Amino acid sequence: MGDTTAFPGLLLWPALSPSTLVSGLGKSTLINSLFLTDLYKDRKVPNAEERISRTVAIIKHAIGIEEKGIKLRLTIIDTPGFGDAINNTESWRHVEDYIDQQFEQYFRDESGLNRRNIQDNRVHCCLYFISPFGHGLRPLDVDCMRALHEKVNIIPVLAKADSLTPAEVCRKKMKIREEIKQFGINIYQFPECDSDEDEDFKTQEQILKNSIPFAVIGSNVQVESKGRKFRGRVYPWGVVEVENPAHSDFLLLRNMLVRTHMQDLKDVTREIHYENYRAQCIQNMTRMVVLERKRSEADFPLPLAITDTEKERLIYEKDEEVCFTLLLHPVINLVIRAISTYLFICFFF
Amino acid sequence: MGDTTAFPGLLLWPALSPSTLVSGLGKSTLINSLFLTDLYKDRKVPNAEERISRTVAIIKHAIGIEEKGIKLRLTIIDTPGFGDAINNTESWRHVEDYIDQQFEQYFRDESGLNRRNIQDNRVHCCLYFISPFGHGLRPLDVDCMRALHEKVNIIPVLAKADSLTPAEVCRKKMKIREEIKQFGINIYQFPECDSDEDEDFKTQEQILKNSIPFAVIGSNVQVESKGRKFRGRVYPWGVVEVENPAHSDFLLLRNMLVRTHMQDLKDVTREIHYENYRAQCIQNMTRMVVLERKRSEADFPLPLAITDTEKERLIYEKDEEVCFTLLLHPVINLVIRAISTYLFICFFF
Repeated sequence: MGDTTAFPGLLLWPALSPSTLVSGLGKSTLINSLFLTDLYKDRKVPNAEERISRTVAIIKHAIGIEEKGIKLRLTIIDTPGFGDAINNTESWRHVEDYIDQQFEQYFRDESGLNRRNIQDNRVHCCLYFISPFGHGLRPLDVDCMRALHEKVNIIPVLAKADSLTPAEVCRKKMKIREEIKQFGINIYQFPECDSDEDEDFKTQEQILKNSIPFAVIGSNVQVESKGRKFRGRVYPWGVVEVENPAHSDFLLLRNMLVRTHMQDLKDVTREIHYENYRAQCIQNMTRMVVLERKRSEADFPLPLAITDTEKERLIYEKDEEVCFTLLLHPVINLVIRAISTYLFICFFF
Repeated sequence: MGDTTAFPGLLLWPALSPSTLVSGLGKSTLINSLFLTDLYKDRKVPNAEERISRTVAIIKHAIGIEEKGIKLRLTIIDTPGFGDAINNTESWRHVEDYIDQQFEQYFRDESGLNRRNIQDNRVHCCLYFISPFGHGLRPLDVDCMRALHEKVNIIPVLAKADSLTPAEVCRKKMKIREEIKQFGINIYQFPECDSDEDEDFKTQEQILKNSIPFAVIGSNVQVESKGRKFRGRVYPWGVVEVENPAHSDFLLLRNMLVRTHMQDLKDVTREIHYENYRAQCIQNMTRMVVLERKRSEADFPLPLAITDTEKERLIYEKDEEVCFTLLLHPVINLVIRAISTYLFICFFF
């Protein structure tokens, strides 16, 4: 499939996250903390006037990280402005289109002649930021996740969890999990453990499942306290340590993303989301070819009507076969006409 | 004016706050902390389905508090659901209508015969909750405050300030103050100090002005720590004390609302917002009467056209006088016709 194995040691995991939802939830800060980078070095926060006029944008950041000696190249897709407007109806359309475009590009590339060095830009994971202040999911969250859940692995995170006490985090997580189920949102499912896995591994997987949505805290600031240096947030009442498991699920999320579940996220994208897209694409093409054939039939009606069901099924199967070929051809209309002619020939002989 | 002085010792400050903006910002918790009450004893947080279908509601809560031996009766107006929808266009209309209705009721009452025991339900203050996570004001904030600023004293508060470090609070406050100015939003202005006021008083007033928007933290929980009991929030990294001036502006806001500026809030409401409403009302009535007169003139054209400007001015003044009387009359259309007739008589004799 011209996949990442073509780059030994350099994993392509290009699109980490169309990290959506209302701006100000600490998306870029979290990404900076996760990958020890600085997404917006010269960030200029737009003023209110600019925020009012702007729409949702898609911004790509390519970053390289090294994890236990393995170099990773990530692409972060940020969606500044999402949820900022007064009317947010269908504001996720940009993100949906972006995901589809990457699938489309991959489909073209893998249908081409030289498919050994395909650049995989498909979106493998979407960190969906949920506000810690909502009473559960908001209508925008429900609509957005439903619009994307068949296209990408959604991992919900509870943003800025340092504004919630442990009891509140626990209640919010339960409520959000319930609502995700209630609204039929298909978030990324951690793979089931094999029965012969060791107990430690099973426990770890169970902890991961129970942590959804991951309660996260990000920080761009290095704090020095009691002789230690760490990323943290200094409040008058105490210091939050981003990587302290008692303070947030940051480490759990990072390990999951960069170490334990990266391959599974890629596999699910390739085997489920991309295959769904591909099947849909082929179906649409088939429908188009059939329509074109019918139109041609209407222009040049056959002298003898063919009513045999078995024959029709065969013709439909032929359509499906040829439409895949269609996609490879640059002058699509010419091909459709040619195939229609070919089908006519089949009918007559 | 049938004002609160009719109730010695029992101040009527009926509508503390159509405490607006997105739910989950801790409005009721803050009110509970401010007035040591429990707004929603049996509160049932709506589930996501209910939140999706519901619209902005207006809920009134009457509470009594005692401040230094003086009993106060407050009415809190809450707007659950505000900002929850995907499309929030003009979602403040309910609040605007509510404020207008109270002015209208007061206008009717003070125009009536018995104006000694008027119940003053006018909205004296609106605590406007700004999310701590926005990069300044959001378009919804700007539109909402602009829609209300000529009708009510707006006091902006920075909600859930325990999610911000002191440096962040400082930056957000400055940015919000700048944007309030930039967008021409007229929030409540603290009265200027007289030059002969003592220095302590002047300093206190300056602190108040510099604190806008008040960074607040609310809590329904009594915490016991180091032998003291206080309202607070217990995090793994420390305990937030709601009433600690180093942690939030809670005390500043409470003192201002309940002690130092209550009377000024009422005065500004009465002298500016209500008078604006009343003038607008009278103008509208005048316009209506003039239109009605013109319509009647068209139905029964005068035999001699009156072109004398002085006479027209006099007629206009008469219109203004009579339209005030109009408001007192229950069958308004009948009166308009009667007055039109009267005017006709004036013209002829």
